[in-house]
Amino acid sequence: MTLTRLAGSRVAVIGLGLIGGSMGLALRREGVWVQGYDTDEAASDEAARLGLIDGRSRTLSSALDGIDVVLLCTPVSSVLNLLPAVDRMTDPSALILDTGSVKAAVLEVMDALPGGARAVGGHPLAGKEESGPAAADPDLFRGRPFVLSPSSTTSPDTLGRAVELAGAVGAFPRVMEAQRHDEVLSRTSHLPQILATALALCVSPEDARYAGAGLRDMTRLAGSDPTMWRDILLLNGPCVVAEANRYIARLQELVAAIAAGDAQSIERLLEDGQQARHALHGAPKPSAGRPT
Amino acid sequence: MTLTRLAGSRVAVIGLGLIGGSMGLALRREGVWVQGYDTDEAASDEAARLGLIDGRSRTLSSALDGIDVVLLCTPVSSVLNLLPAVDRMTDPSALILDTGSVKAAVLEVMDALPGGARAVGGHPLAGKEESGPAAADPDLFRGRPFVLSPSSTTSPDTLGRAVELAGAVGAFPRVMEAQRHDEVLSRTSHLPQILATALALCVSPEDARYAGAGLRDMTRLAGSDPTMWRDILLLNGPCVVAEANRYIARLQELVAAIAAGDAQSIERLLEDGQQARHALHGAPKPSAGRPT
Repeated sequence: MTLTRLAGSRVAVIGLGLIGGSMGLALRREGVWVQGYDTDEAASDEAARLGLIDGRSRTLSSALDGIDVVLLCTPVSSVLNLLPAVDRMTDPSALILDTGSVKAAVLEVMDALPGGARAVGGHPLAGKEESGPAAADPDLFRGRPFVLSPSSTTSPDTLGRAVELAGAVGAFPRVMEAQRHDEVLSRTSHLPQILATALALCVSPEDARYAGAGLRDMTRLAGSDPTMWRDILLLNGPCVVAEANRYIARLQELVAAIAAGDAQSIERLLEDGQQARHALHGAPKPSAGRPT
Repeated sequence: MTLTRLAGSRVAVIGLGLIGGSMGLALRREGVWVQGYDTDEAASDEAARLGLIDGRSRTLSSALDGIDVVLLCTPVSSVLNLLPAVDRMTDPSALILDTGSVKAAVLEVMDALPGGARAVGGHPLAGKEESGPAAADPDLFRGRPFVLSPSSTTSPDTLGRAVELAGAVGAFPRVMEAQRHDEVLSRTSHLPQILATALALCVSPEDARYAGAGLRDMTRLAGSDPTMWRDILLLNGPCVVAEANRYIARLQELVAAIAAGDAQSIERLLEDGQQARHALHGAPKPSAGRPT
């Protein structure tokens, strides 16, 4: 890939956790200068020591000085708080792109920025269980979708530059309306999160000795960071509530069939669920699982 | 381990899927003669070809001829159907042990058997995604719990022999009342199954391209065999319904907090869920997950 505009440019990565650190590594590999900033100085130090960034700044304003691209990789509530200051402090020709898990709330703020034409929402759909700079991986985004959500004021040039950046880190850019992003992610990410939390709340530690891989998989997400998830659930509340209510209705349908001893309905729902799972992730080899 | 009574004895394994095949391999390794039977002749052929069993029978009665231990490894509804015939056809000194995922329904039938003193319920808590004889693994039960549930007529000698057999395949025998087994498993296994099925039913195939590891984990169980699970859910209906209703109440508590924008309650529930997950499976290294 030839990076006609990105190569040789200067990118400020604000927030040096798993996503920011991985962005730093991936961009440095493409010949980009990466300036790093994090309110947590220990995280900054670690990012510099691990070679995730070229330079580190002690303040936001110095991080943004002479920068061509600002990448906001903080939790999404910090993105909302930072955007007005970043817009004020950044050169008018610089691209501003975030990586938050909720998009409509971010786009609302971007829409209102004086320099909103050079701002665009982003969400790389990539992650792993570990977090923090030490977990950074230059291939984290490789082959994954990178949603880009333009605001009503985002210029076509801004969107083009964001597409180029997504490609530079190995991701597939997908331009998508913010509201649609939030609806889809409420099903594929936010709903699974609250289902796992509720299940963990129902199981007692004494049950652990009788637990198998199924329970482990179904509660894994419950181990996620509560502060980050509080923000996501608050900022995407209406979508999450709608999907959760749809889910509860489906579950109640299955529970009613079990309560009625209705073998035919139970089997039909299990079969439909199996089909849906196969449509999502392909059929397993050679056949189905046994409970543990 | 010295197998004072099991070594040199003859075990009939009825049902040659993952569990029966793995029992065959594990027991043969301990010097036991294993006679195999399955209503599916192709499964019998494969089990013989793979060396999971020493001999294969074409009929149930011939499989039980001259046998010291009968291991019922069929789906649990077949266990219920087979038990009276197995009791009639088997030498009065033989042990009868099943491996079904539901215990109270099995114990009810065992209680009523003329030869019920030599029958005991069992459930090895082991499994994997693959099924069938080809998936058999002699170490499947190693280090896993093997629940043993005596009926009101089970003799102490019968229970002792079942404990010995569980140990011989590498499992930890745990004697447990059938009703309590069904309650615990409705939380740790049956509830996760219906939650995964309901989630798979809520997600569309077009959502797949925006799905990460979280959704994949949370829907994996939905790929399980519908017929086997229909039986488990029917046979453990009251426990499953009670746990599902408790779960729905927990989930509704979280959804209500999201709908109300109640940041404090959302965070508290997420924190409690994280604690519960860590109590179940230990804390991850080095910290929490990011959504994908």
